[in-house]
Amino acid sequence: MTAATGHHVKGFPETVSVIEVGPRDGLQSEPEFVPTDRKIALVNGLIDAGIRHLEVTSFVSPRAVPQLRDAADVLAGIDRSKGAVLTALVPNAKGAVRAAEAGIDAMVVFMSASESHNLKNVNRTRAQSLEGFADIVRIAGEANIPVFGAIATSFGCPFEGNVPVSAIVDIARAYRDMGITTLSLGDTTGMATPPLVQERCRALGEAVPEADIALHFHNTRGVGLACVYAGLLEGVTRYEASIGGLGGCPFAPNATGNICTEDLVYMLDECGVESGVDLDRLIRVSREAEAVIGRTLPGQVMKAGPRLQTYGMDSVATANG
Amino acid sequence: MTAATGHHVKGFPETVSVIEVGPRDGLQSEPEFVPTDRKIALVNGLIDAGIRHLEVTSFVSPRAVPQLRDAADVLAGIDRSKGAVLTALVPNAKGAVRAAEAGIDAMVVFMSASESHNLKNVNRTRAQSLEGFADIVRIAGEANIPVFGAIATSFGCPFEGNVPVSAIVDIARAYRDMGITTLSLGDTTGMATPPLVQERCRALGEAVPEADIALHFHNTRGVGLACVYAGLLEGVTRYEASIGGLGGCPFAPNATGNICTEDLVYMLDECGVESGVDLDRLIRVSREAEAVIGRTLPGQVMKAGPRLQTYGMDSVATANG
Repeated sequence: MTAATGHHVKGFPETVSVIEVGPRDGLQSEPEFVPTDRKIALVNGLIDAGIRHLEVTSFVSPRAVPQLRDAADVLAGIDRSKGAVLTALVPNAKGAVRAAEAGIDAMVVFMSASESHNLKNVNRTRAQSLEGFADIVRIAGEANIPVFGAIATSFGCPFEGNVPVSAIVDIARAYRDMGITTLSLGDTTGMATPPLVQERCRALGEAVPEADIALHFHNTRGVGLACVYAGLLEGVTRYEASIGGLGGCPFAPNATGNICTEDLVYMLDECGVESGVDLDRLIRVSREAEAVIGRTLPGQVMKAGPRLQTYGMDSVATANG
Repeated sequence: MTAATGHHVKGFPETVSVIEVGPRDGLQSEPEFVPTDRKIALVNGLIDAGIRHLEVTSFVSPRAVPQLRDAADVLAGIDRSKGAVLTALVPNAKGAVRAAEAGIDAMVVFMSASESHNLKNVNRTRAQSLEGFADIVRIAGEANIPVFGAIATSFGCPFEGNVPVSAIVDIARAYRDMGITTLSLGDTTGMATPPLVQERCRALGEAVPEADIALHFHNTRGVGLACVYAGLLEGVTRYEASIGGLGGCPFAPNATGNICTEDLVYMLDECGVESGVDLDRLIRVSREAEAVIGRTLPGQVMKAGPRLQTYGMDSVATANG
């Protein structure tokens, strides 16, 4: 069953795309290598559940991110029959060549809105990152592969604190000037808040109206789905999430990473927003992901079950109140 | 620092009361008895952090809820100098007498919106519960103590599934007819959703306009703060929460219970809504609560720290992206 079950919340879009990033953003922070066939099974399970857009891996240096060293093999094993759009991060020309050879559907280039995070993450200034994208765009263009643009630290930087909205607008304009208009705003360390979501969505809508924005929130401070709520009220129709809440935060060892895909789908269903995803199947994939990772994941719906799961009156002892 | 730091979200109230229920709703599901002096220290820490309304215990039978058998002793140890309003659950006349003797500021009567949950929880029909409240109201009145009314399973019942809005309206009217207009809608097992919040707040506003509504959400399915978001847009100014997310769900052993007080305060701060609570102090109390309970609590901000906590660039290794 993939139908939204709740009464539609006024002001929310009618339909939304859920973009799964667990296989990339979730797994990349896992220290134990997840076998390639388990990764493929995870992605195929997500596609079976109705997800139609997935960031499946990253064509970064295998030395930098050993977990994703099997990028091409993962891609080769994924079920392409359902028409799911498979994307991967591509940091440089070398990665672009590998991604094109592996048959990726779209390449995602990425840079940070804050200079210090960009330096830390890719060892380049923001200007150097933008320069480097020209090669990727050329390689992708020759292979007829679209390029999407991600903006990390869009809502705050763990080194600098607040990030001015002008930094996001400038990068979005630079992306547009390279022909990249499918963008995502990354909440890299969980600093997004509802008013920042409003502010940034409105500023981009005015400055770069041709941009198609996805929002990528982390639940590091508990407000991930509240930020989605704010984004829905701004009319944003694409949201990135990670199955089970797979992943974490490099700055807070016990904190949560990406918002959880099945909790997002549960909220969308209950708010009358169609996502085309089957929540029951998604919960099964989430539990399988937990088994693969071998520890409890932060997803809530996978533990509590669907909303209308009812119990026999002898099933529990309740305390008063 | 207790000032709201974020840009005020249009449509949200300017100020909100945060009602701490961890000492009652959180602790009552803890199997290990928490020593009375630790409970008192917890409540006093919360008051020091700026909380001005707390549900501190329950005058239920010590056999039914052994954890709260020290209700009077807890109340005797709490700092009353700051003017915090201390409430307690009161299930019957005997509890009302004990609560009055112990010097409670307000008694909270409670019943479920669904018949089967009320039978399971207090072994009475809803009609019998309402009848029993007359004695409590009389005892409280003689002691000049106000009575508040809670409605459990206001957003769904674990035995019956959906709960019709008419059930909530009927109970709110019955409460009003007894002079009880300070109400709370309890999301007992985490079944609240944003459209249900909208529907129930609007129905109560029309049917019982004199009612002052508090919302009591559980984060069992991850959407607790999204439900607060919906409530704020409905103009609701009172929210119940549990420090650290203390507590759980009797139906799902690993699932979360009440929404977390400091995550709520974080969201309010960032949305420009004044709560009068100092987030940094609250985080300290939350970490103390975790130490008392001896296991990791679900609160997120207590793990990640405040939003603008920044890091040195050598503090972590970041993976690409």
